[in-house]
Amino acid sequence: MSVSPKEVVHHMMQKDAFSRWLGIEILELKEGYAKTRMTVRADMMNGLGVAHGGIAFSLADSTFAFACNNRNVLSLAIDTSINFVKPVKPKDVLTAEAIEVHDGKSSGLYQVIIKNQDNKEVAFFKGVCFRTGKSVI
Amino acid sequence: MSVSPKEVVHHMMQKDAFSRWLGIEILELKEGYAKTRMTVRADMMNGLGVAHGGIAFSLADSTFAFACNNRNVLSLAIDTSINFVKPVKPKDVLTAEAIEVHDGKSSGLYQVIIKNQDNKEVAFFKGVCFRTGKSVI
Amino acid sequence: MSVSPKEVVHHMMQKDAFSRWLGIEILELKEGYAKTRMTVRADMMNGLGVAHGGIAFSLADSTFAFACNNRNVLSLAIDTSINFVKPVKPKDVLTAEAIEVHDGKSSGLYQVIIKNQDNKEVAFFKGVCFRTGKSVI
Amino acid sequence: MSVSPKEVVHHMMQKDAFSRWLGIEILELKEGYAKTRMTVRADMMNGLGVAHGGIAFSLADSTFAFACNNRNVLSLAIDTSINFVKPVKPKDVLTAEAIEVHDGKSSGLYQVIIKNQDNKEVAFFKGVCFRTGKSVI
Repeated sequence: MSVSPKEVVHHMMQKDAFSRWLGIEILELKEGYAKTRMTVRADMMNGLGVAHGGIAFSLADSTFAFACNNRNVLSLAIDTSINFVKPVKPKDVLTAEAIEVHDGKSSGLYQVIIKNQDNKEVAFFKGVCFRTGKSVI
Repeated sequence: MSVSPKEVVHHMMQKDAFSRWLGIEILELKEGYAKTRMTVRADMMNGLGVAHGGIAFSLADSTFAFACNNRNVLSLAIDTSINFVKPVKPKDVLTAEAIEVHDGKSSGLYQVIIKNQDNKEVAFFKGVCFRTGKSVI
Repeated sequence: MSVSPKEVVHHMMQKDAFSRWLGIEILELKEGYAKTRMTVRADMMNGLGVAHGGIAFSLADSTFAFACNNRNVLSLAIDTSINFVKPVKPKDVLTAEAIEVHDGKSSGLYQVIIKNQDNKEVAFFKGVCFRTGKSVI
Repeated sequence: MSVSPKEVVHHMMQKDAFSRWLGIEILELKEGYAKTRMTVRADMMNGLGVAHGGIAFSLADSTFAFACNNRNVLSLAIDTSINFVKPVKPKDVLTAEAIEVHDGKSSGLYQVIIKNQDNKEVAFFKGVCFRTGKSVI
């Protein structure tokens, strides 16, 4: 019996302590696709008065993982990159959308776009994963 | 009067709530260089039983920021990428070393290597920053 | 008097010996946008029987340059990356489309998608440029 | 009977029409390592008066391929990135050195540094390859 994207991601989220610390909510899931949301807090700031780059990265990386694993094929991130185009501040509400650019047999390529509450893009993430052939659940 | 790398990074760390949550310690600072350490905790795990990719990224990104800003020239990350080569687990002690590959007038290029307590490389980070011309302090 | 995207790119193409060697044609130009085409030849192969990765990269890089310079603001590539998802062979006709993801004051972010004659994506390119403030013409 | 790095790369170079057009020479080969050289020509210029970014990329990509395939394990580039830190001009003699950062079972990570005749670094390349399990020869 096949396992749905929701079941896979629900299983992942139960164990994902750091995504819970970040306050990530799942908004939408489809095969190879995920949409999430989180609210930036004061304890996520860096030393230059804006949100730490690791916050947007972590949101993007979780959303990438929810997209690339959700056919129940365990997929490990090999290479990820992120470009920051707009500062993120406390109380900003970030929405991340992961789109499958390429679904290969042994690897996959995903793009994650993060926008703020004003629908302005704040960061662009790219993730390459390796398909292990194992199942997540 | 000039400001030392230590003064700049001390100033940054005081405001850097997220680096403190991560438990990042500064081990060494020189112009364009920084070395840091942190211990991975259970609340940093992801849904696949290993440390969330955002943890190693955040450690690298902080170390990159401590290196590229420490001449007291405010520098903003434009593009960063990370490759994960070994899983990270709770209680792992990660050491990150940021080296200045290129110190340009308007941009800089840095490499950060993260190793675990067994001196094994776990991740390779690359960061490009833009020099704003403003000072940090 | 302002200079049009066509005038800027025409000026660039006249001096661009390598793009001419590649056989790159300009299909469409708008501010921050460019679309190009080239046909892969036998002298573009690598040692593994497919087109050299440098061919798709060079097509993408030219198209990126035609897009990011065409407001007559001289812009230099700082960081570029490319993901290869499908092999390219001799006689393939490649179309490259450069889209402006972010147009910042001091930097810009562009995505270039390369497709073959079957409308299949073969490579995804990302380019970050630095705006020098000088003009191209 | 095992095949040496030299035999693998010699086999690759015989078919590598584009590396020959570039004038790439092999200087040194070891398992997972390659060092090459080429001289920049006028027909390699771009529209802004310097060598086309595709030239340094192609040199790096060839050197990466010679390093990552030379244990006679066919390896395909998945993700590559390059940072340009110094302009390249006609008659420049570029030396590229590919170092194996990580040699994994299913993937490998390599860094290629390109220097000019004054021993100045002009570009930094990173390549991730997928190990197909097939042999090159």
